[in-house]
Amino acid sequence: MASVPEMLMEQIQPPLTTSGGKVSVVGVGQVGMACAFSLLTQHICSELALVDVAADKLRGEMMDLQHGLTFLRNVKIDANTDYAVTAGSRVCIVTAGARQREGESRLSLVQRNVDIFKGMIPQLVKHSPNCILLIVSNPVDILTYVAWKLSGLPKHHVIGSGTNLDSARFRFHLSQKLSVAPSSTHGWIIGEHGDSSVPVWSGVNVAGVRLRDLNPKVGTPEDPEKYDELHKDVVNSAYEIIKLKGYTSWAIGLSVASLVSSIVKNMRACYAVSVAVQNYHGIDKDVFLSLPVVLGENGVTHVIKQTLTEAEIAQLQKSANTLWDVQAGIQF
Amino acid sequence: MASVPEMLMEQIQPPLTTSGGKVSVVGVGQVGMACAFSLLTQHICSELALVDVAADKLRGEMMDLQHGLTFLRNVKIDANTDYAVTAGSRVCIVTAGARQREGESRLSLVQRNVDIFKGMIPQLVKHSPNCILLIVSNPVDILTYVAWKLSGLPKHHVIGSGTNLDSARFRFHLSQKLSVAPSSTHGWIIGEHGDSSVPVWSGVNVAGVRLRDLNPKVGTPEDPEKYDELHKDVVNSAYEIIKLKGYTSWAIGLSVASLVSSIVKNMRACYAVSVAVQNYHGIDKDVFLSLPVVLGENGVTHVIKQTLTEAEIAQLQKSANTLWDVQAGIQF
Amino acid sequence: MASVPEMLMEQIQPPLTTSGGKVSVVGVGQVGMACAFSLLTQHICSELALVDVAADKLRGEMMDLQHGLTFLRNVKIDANTDYAVTAGSRVCIVTAGARQREGESRLSLVQRNVDIFKGMIPQLVKHSPNCILLIVSNPVDILTYVAWKLSGLPKHHVIGSGTNLDSARFRFHLSQKLSVAPSSTHGWIIGEHGDSSVPVWSGVNVAGVRLRDLNPKVGTPEDPEKYDELHKDVVNSAYEIIKLKGYTSWAIGLSVASLVSSIVKNMRACYAVSVAVQNYHGIDKDVFLSLPVVLGENGVTHVIKQTLTEAEIAQLQKSANTLWDVQAGIQF
Amino acid sequence: MASVPEMLMEQIQPPLTTSGGKVSVVGVGQVGMACAFSLLTQHICSELALVDVAADKLRGEMMDLQHGLTFLRNVKIDANTDYAVTAGSRVCIVTAGARQREGESRLSLVQRNVDIFKGMIPQLVKHSPNCILLIVSNPVDILTYVAWKLSGLPKHHVIGSGTNLDSARFRFHLSQKLSVAPSSTHGWIIGEHGDSSVPVWSGVNVAGVRLRDLNPKVGTPEDPEKYDELHKDVVNSAYEIIKLKGYTSWAIGLSVASLVSSIVKNMRACYAVSVAVQNYHGIDKDVFLSLPVVLGENGVTHVIKQTLTEAEIAQLQKSANTLWDVQAGIQF
Repeated sequence: MASVPEMLMEQIQPPLTTSGGKVSVVGVGQVGMACAFSLLTQHICSELALVDVAADKLRGEMMDLQHGLTFLRNVKIDANTDYAVTAGSRVCIVTAGARQREGESRLSLVQRNVDIFKGMIPQLVKHSPNCILLIVSNPVDILTYVAWKLSGLPKHHVIGSGTNLDSARFRFHLSQKLSVAPSSTHGWIIGEHGDSSVPVWSGVNVAGVRLRDLNPKVGTPEDPEKYDELHKDVVNSAYEIIKLKGYTSWAIGLSVASLVSSIVKNMRACYAVSVAVQNYHGIDKDVFLSLPVVLGENGVTHVIKQTLTEAEIAQLQKSANTLWDVQAGIQF
Repeated sequence: MASVPEMLMEQIQPPLTTSGGKVSVVGVGQVGMACAFSLLTQHICSELALVDVAADKLRGEMMDLQHGLTFLRNVKIDANTDYAVTAGSRVCIVTAGARQREGESRLSLVQRNVDIFKGMIPQLVKHSPNCILLIVSNPVDILTYVAWKLSGLPKHHVIGSGTNLDSARFRFHLSQKLSVAPSSTHGWIIGEHGDSSVPVWSGVNVAGVRLRDLNPKVGTPEDPEKYDELHKDVVNSAYEIIKLKGYTSWAIGLSVASLVSSIVKNMRACYAVSVAVQNYHGIDKDVFLSLPVVLGENGVTHVIKQTLTEAEIAQLQKSANTLWDVQAGIQF
Repeated sequence: MASVPEMLMEQIQPPLTTSGGKVSVVGVGQVGMACAFSLLTQHICSELALVDVAADKLRGEMMDLQHGLTFLRNVKIDANTDYAVTAGSRVCIVTAGARQREGESRLSLVQRNVDIFKGMIPQLVKHSPNCILLIVSNPVDILTYVAWKLSGLPKHHVIGSGTNLDSARFRFHLSQKLSVAPSSTHGWIIGEHGDSSVPVWSGVNVAGVRLRDLNPKVGTPEDPEKYDELHKDVVNSAYEIIKLKGYTSWAIGLSVASLVSSIVKNMRACYAVSVAVQNYHGIDKDVFLSLPVVLGENGVTHVIKQTLTEAEIAQLQKSANTLWDVQAGIQF
Repeated sequence: MASVPEMLMEQIQPPLTTSGGKVSVVGVGQVGMACAFSLLTQHICSELALVDVAADKLRGEMMDLQHGLTFLRNVKIDANTDYAVTAGSRVCIVTAGARQREGESRLSLVQRNVDIFKGMIPQLVKHSPNCILLIVSNPVDILTYVAWKLSGLPKHHVIGSGTNLDSARFRFHLSQKLSVAPSSTHGWIIGEHGDSSVPVWSGVNVAGVRLRDLNPKVGTPEDPEKYDELHKDVVNSAYEIIKLKGYTSWAIGLSVASLVSSIVKNMRACYAVSVAVQNYHGIDKDVFLSLPVVLGENGVTHVIKQTLTEAEIAQLQKSANTLWDVQAGIQF
């Protein structure tokens, strides 16, 4: 007797299992899942693969997402501890990595992550040789460099989520101060993701009106309105949220999803992400730091050359040197 | 000297702080936050208020969402331990509640939640007297009844998320078996959310073709293709995901967001949600169970009268009696 | 001296001009443009090519769409009278064709369109050999057959928009009668697009409740509530709208966009579209008629085998024979 | 015997017919319908009312939109020659108006439109006393003034679509020249919609980098790269498209939809729209011209005070004087 599917339908040809819109997420912790959920709810990918070493957690997250597909569009969601599940991805997002231990040096943390990345990056590239690698794990700038070294990919196919999130936080704080939507409040934070990031005050504007043209002291310590505290708020935000809820997730998930969207839809929008910066702004080290770039299907096509102050350039170079020193100690 | 905002802009009138599209979420655990994030990423509300007793966690979640607004549309996001923050909501989603303790009776759990709801429901109704109350906390059917009793609202303004999620899981499992998108695979699970839920096999169809018309045994123990195991999978799903990842979040978040969307946009779509069921299908108790209903801006406008088998009706009545017995023991 | 773009940006690699999400529309009349605008506003394609013989109109429409990109996502929009502009499309939508002249026979109209299609279809296939051809021009069922014959493509790569629109109209009229959203009101119209279409009353349902189970006369001439008039309304709609506004555009545009979405995102949803129907429902002619199918990236993967009444089958066969007779007279 | 709806459903309460998200469009020509279709496909309103004097065309457009609802969300779409259909709108979009006759003076055209507006504006305000009036009919700046005079509404509740479209065209042309998405290419055109519009070159930037800082001659006649031609292209665009396709529709539809979205969702984003400009930039006449403003639920809350050159200010004042002279001749 025929089965119900046979009675219900005549198969004309087998369905395809790959659809040209596949994105993979490595690491199903809070950050990885916020990325995955942002991609699904915003309809950015038509296929999603999850990878993690924790098989149980991985399967639980996959099932939980799959059960929501009735409320979304039909996306093929798969998960496996084996990287073969990622085959044919256009973007691979890496959120996995070790966390800093009490009293551990930065180099020690980086080295432990290098060892983890050795098991991940070559596997991702093996199964998706044309993918764009998008690194989210921290310290993101060094790990993007590490991922590039381990991947054998062209430099412009490897990016770090970098200061895209810092810029978003900056724009939100500015928007609150000005009562204007963040989407209409423009400002860029570049450089090293985190404490040493650089707010480019010369570019902060609403409708093309630069705040610096209204008050040249904006963003400086001499500013009586203390706009420089907005940048301090950005730097403190991560620490504060981690203290308050234990981790950050939603904003980084949305930040990453916006980058993936610009890549898979070849949108060519500008984002501050961690890219190879040697020879920009007088940086002479082979490191990755965030600068505004144009992102399309083949990754970074252009780096925007902002006009920076001497102090901003000095901060970038200092970050570059610090990263380079750490990188020098890495055992590949 | 003028401030930067004064130099940048001339205020014509003060901005409004309420926009007619406000939704509140009580409880910022994994479920509450998956609801909130689903609402934001799918642009369902234009204002979002979060409430919880855990002030730190609450503030951390609010900040994390706010930092993502640059990537979304501008939504006013606020959070407070004081229910005044929810004033003017069109929908209030309740995800807070106590969890079952080892060896605790169901009635004991319910009573503890009743005590918690006493502190929440009147506060929500006080600040949003015309809202639709949407209860997600478990056991959802009894707590929806409890919320209605405590609210003083008309019955059709209080609903429970009920078997909308069970139905979504059912449709996903069916869709996998049939290789058809969940959105084109129709099936309804009604009754008590959880173990005693009732799959209405007579309505399961693809393109209007009922599986029961292809094989009358579909969904029965005699079916050699064992479609009844799909329902077992649905029942087991919650347990399995909790075992694997500790809780369920994404699918319930999307389920709730779809209900809210139908309400605030007055879409009048059908969903299986927990509603007052006395006098339907021979139920003589004043309890809440899930049936398919039409959801619009004023809550439930119609209950769909499905044609059920005797066994299905018996199961509904059995659930109703069980719930009623528990409700009888509640101290309001 | 360097140019502004050179000063602004460093090019790392040239941007890609193709993004894997290209859709082409042939014919920029009201129907073609409603298709194009529906694709853009719903973010279904990442690249759009328009073709028409009317170079001026074509350029005007391209410019008008391009000027809207600031409000949408960045889509590469191109237009040309040369089919080379369509190269690499995943879906090619054909809306061009001759209109019936006063007193012209159907065969004469078809023959004129065949002559037009001879100049279009081979060109489309030459530039996009793996595309799905989606025919919208009328009479759609015959012209889908003609397109298939001229294309050399596998049958399941050529579909006609068919009764997907008729079904949508049917669901809207049902939804008005029942006060339920069209998305929750299920009904299928199959067969020949237009006057001879077949409403499958056995499948009409809300929440799995078949109207026929409530009143067996639903859809028959004996039904005192006259549900059969809903089908007459569907048939008359096209004529009425053409009489009232001169053409139909918006609904067919949305209908086509939904089909394209299911294809390019490999969604595997069900739609009633015109496909090769020989050997279904006792049809022995090699014609195209609408049946519910599953649509994915590689076109039609499954045909749903609805349980039809003798009268419904007879109507399908009658349509098939009529189409076959017309097809027999075509000069390829 | 019970009817099918009665057997299918139990009505608990009547559905609401108004949902708090109503938008009306007056005039169902190409512009009005592109507005309506943009609102629907982008899910901006939950209720849509159309008004026109041409009853047939109006009914045809309404039916055509309604038939597409199965592919969208359920929106209540209504149409009538009677303005009562617009009751309770949050935004009323006016696209109706007379076209310039061969050899007709501007004042004559304006006077004819004033006479038409006398029949429309008081009717709209009568039925939606708290609405925001959004004027699209040309000449838009004068007609926005006229609408305000006829409406009795506060000035900040009446806006004209103004140079929002000119700015979008400018950003598209810039984006083509720079190979960057229009969303990342910032530039503002202000002043009178059309030939006398003013591109504010000082604000043109990508990632906060002002083109004027790279080349101070950008936008001037001395610029060897001829960026000033981008503005000429914008001015010529409207004429060229009208010559090529007979009218412009898609971009203005999307432009208007973006304004409505910022209003009904209280998004507080910045747009260049026609507002009362007396006392800005030394303008001493009571006229409406486009300046960047912040748009929220209660209309214009802030006007952005751009830093303009003397030439830009002179052009604004000249436009203001011209408009004032025309307005002086109007017979109200």
